[in-house]
Amino acid sequence: MMNMAILGFGTVGSGVAKVLTENAAEVAAGAGEEVRLKYIVDVRDMPDSPFAPLMVKDFSIVEQDPEVGVVVETIGGCGVALTFTRRALAAGKHVVTSNKQLVAEHGVELLALAKEKGVNYFFEASVGGGIPLLRPLFNDLSANKILAIKGIVNGTTNYILTAMEQSGTELDEALKEAQALGYAELNPDSDLDGTDAVRKACILADLAWGRELKPDLVPVEGIRNVALQDIRNAASAGGAIKLLCRLQRDESGKAYVWVAPHFVPASSMLAHVDSAYNAVIITGNAVGDTLFYGTGAGSIPTASAVVGDVVDAVRHKNAPRGIGWSDAPLALGDPETLPSRWYIRSGEKWSITDMATADKLPAAQVRYRVLD
Amino acid sequence: MMNMAILGFGTVGSGVAKVLTENAAEVAAGAGEEVRLKYIVDVRDMPDSPFAPLMVKDFSIVEQDPEVGVVVETIGGCGVALTFTRRALAAGKHVVTSNKQLVAEHGVELLALAKEKGVNYFFEASVGGGIPLLRPLFNDLSANKILAIKGIVNGTTNYILTAMEQSGTELDEALKEAQALGYAELNPDSDLDGTDAVRKACILADLAWGRELKPDLVPVEGIRNVALQDIRNAASAGGAIKLLCRLQRDESGKAYVWVAPHFVPASSMLAHVDSAYNAVIITGNAVGDTLFYGTGAGSIPTASAVVGDVVDAVRHKNAPRGIGWSDAPLALGDPETLPSRWYIRSGEKWSITDMATADKLPAAQVRYRVLD
Repeated sequence: MMNMAILGFGTVGSGVAKVLTENAAEVAAGAGEEVRLKYIVDVRDMPDSPFAPLMVKDFSIVEQDPEVGVVVETIGGCGVALTFTRRALAAGKHVVTSNKQLVAEHGVELLALAKEKGVNYFFEASVGGGIPLLRPLFNDLSANKILAIKGIVNGTTNYILTAMEQSGTELDEALKEAQALGYAELNPDSDLDGTDAVRKACILADLAWGRELKPDLVPVEGIRNVALQDIRNAASAGGAIKLLCRLQRDESGKAYVWVAPHFVPASSMLAHVDSAYNAVIITGNAVGDTLFYGTGAGSIPTASAVVGDVVDAVRHKNAPRGIGWSDAPLALGDPETLPSRWYIRSGEKWSITDMATADKLPAAQVRYRVLD
Repeated sequence: MMNMAILGFGTVGSGVAKVLTENAAEVAAGAGEEVRLKYIVDVRDMPDSPFAPLMVKDFSIVEQDPEVGVVVETIGGCGVALTFTRRALAAGKHVVTSNKQLVAEHGVELLALAKEKGVNYFFEASVGGGIPLLRPLFNDLSANKILAIKGIVNGTTNYILTAMEQSGTELDEALKEAQALGYAELNPDSDLDGTDAVRKACILADLAWGRELKPDLVPVEGIRNVALQDIRNAASAGGAIKLLCRLQRDESGKAYVWVAPHFVPASSMLAHVDSAYNAVIITGNAVGDTLFYGTGAGSIPTASAVVGDVVDAVRHKNAPRGIGWSDAPLALGDPETLPSRWYIRSGEKWSITDMATADKLPAAQVRYRVLD
């Protein structure tokens, strides 16, 4: 039997407790042994929770309990989550997280520490929520050179863009509805400005190419300026405006990584990914294009990925996978130098250009790259 | 360094040799050691192949060479492929295959033998070609009860159905074109009659539910009777007629597995999967719907999955994964008892019914289940 602890009992943490309980038989079958939730660490009092008997406030209880082999970190951010992750790994415990900011900013250090201590540090839920994505990338597609990745990795902005099209509202109103329904947070900046998508793009780049990409190096344009008019124009052609993360690598090994709204034509599967769903296309030199689609957020779907990581950590408890990437930075090119077709609009008039680099475009009020 | 051998140097086998050579650095990084192709076993002479120096005709050379740790079987069928797989496993070698017929019909025996010998028997390429699908199912989604799977798993029939719609031809003509272009074999029976899709459905059911499903128990209707008129009717509603494998399980644990053409409405991602592409939606009780899409056949994409399996076999050479399923048969229900909406047509007139079981349908010339 393997004992585990959950740090942070919010949306994801409570989902993890629920999935572990409801699907205990599947978890035990996958892991090869029973997985028992022993502690939940949270500073808040939750006397009414069915998990109240497991609640503790002091992380050092988990840290010092030799029975605890796996720690799930669902606190978020880079404050106490970083401290506790370091201490759990240093104590020889496997750590599983859904925390994209922590992995994007401190992955090199934490993965090296995990390797040194002979434990696993897994983070499948950090990109694409419940969608199996990172493990297929570094495992199933390991026989490929990864040429490109393009994806809808932020469910909040995709929900808002879909809502704008379906209800004919501008962004401000769609945002308010999304907040009322719980699809957007009260402070939506990291979603709207693309910061969240950038973190996920960095994790994908780290895994695809084995070198660290720091979030502050990624050019980003969020969705704040996307107008209903542009969404309607795209829809009239069967397509959609989508916030995409883009990663590609040229023959010389130079990488281009950026996040921006795109005009996605009807012929792309990504045009048909609506609401809070996520989808990512990974292009390998052997496999060609392969797409992964599903629920990119939410308590239970995200918990599916976290608990899947727990199962894999237990299964590999004596032979850790040794995932990691180098702290040598990825050589980056400027995406503005990449030719593309563009959607351009001035006033009511819009058109799709021929292939051109950004500096060769005619003057226009609005321009979005076309996904080809 | 790990030495390996390929059995059968046809479409897939030659792709495996190519991917191993071209992506040697990625393979070595993934596997943690160099992977060297030592032998290719084929009864044919191929003096002009760049791999000619590796060719041998006698499998026992591979079997008796203690240096060979991994054997890739791309012979196909259940004749010599079965014999060689048994002998390779018995000799303590890991085996990787793309042979769906062998896995569907003899998986229980071969996986048990692999377990007994402490080696891996992997078959990612047997369903969905290059698409990472089986490993995500038994690995990433291990925290889920699998409720349903629905998929386009046969590229040949999907190519033919797409070609009928796009060029306005009946099936016979589309088949001839597909054969001329290499998308259909000269004997297309196992594709057109759904036999190939049934084998893949059985492998999915085996993995999802841990019990053996024999192909001859699966109700199947192929695409031979699909008329251009029905394809046009579906297209006029933004949808498509697709050959789907369907797997679902009710609360009592009873499973329903069948293969048949379906009317797929525009709202389903599966309606947008064209040509030789495959796509499979897996529904878990935690993750919800998750879709995997990509190239379901072809030499190099299929080789991507085979070589990915080789990498994973090498990485787990001392701690095999122990995949397998019980030979206790899956309890099966009759899909005819499952209510559904139906596309029905008599002459020129067509409509979509309300929910009904098959026996309650009005008399009609043509009827296909609607995918909801």
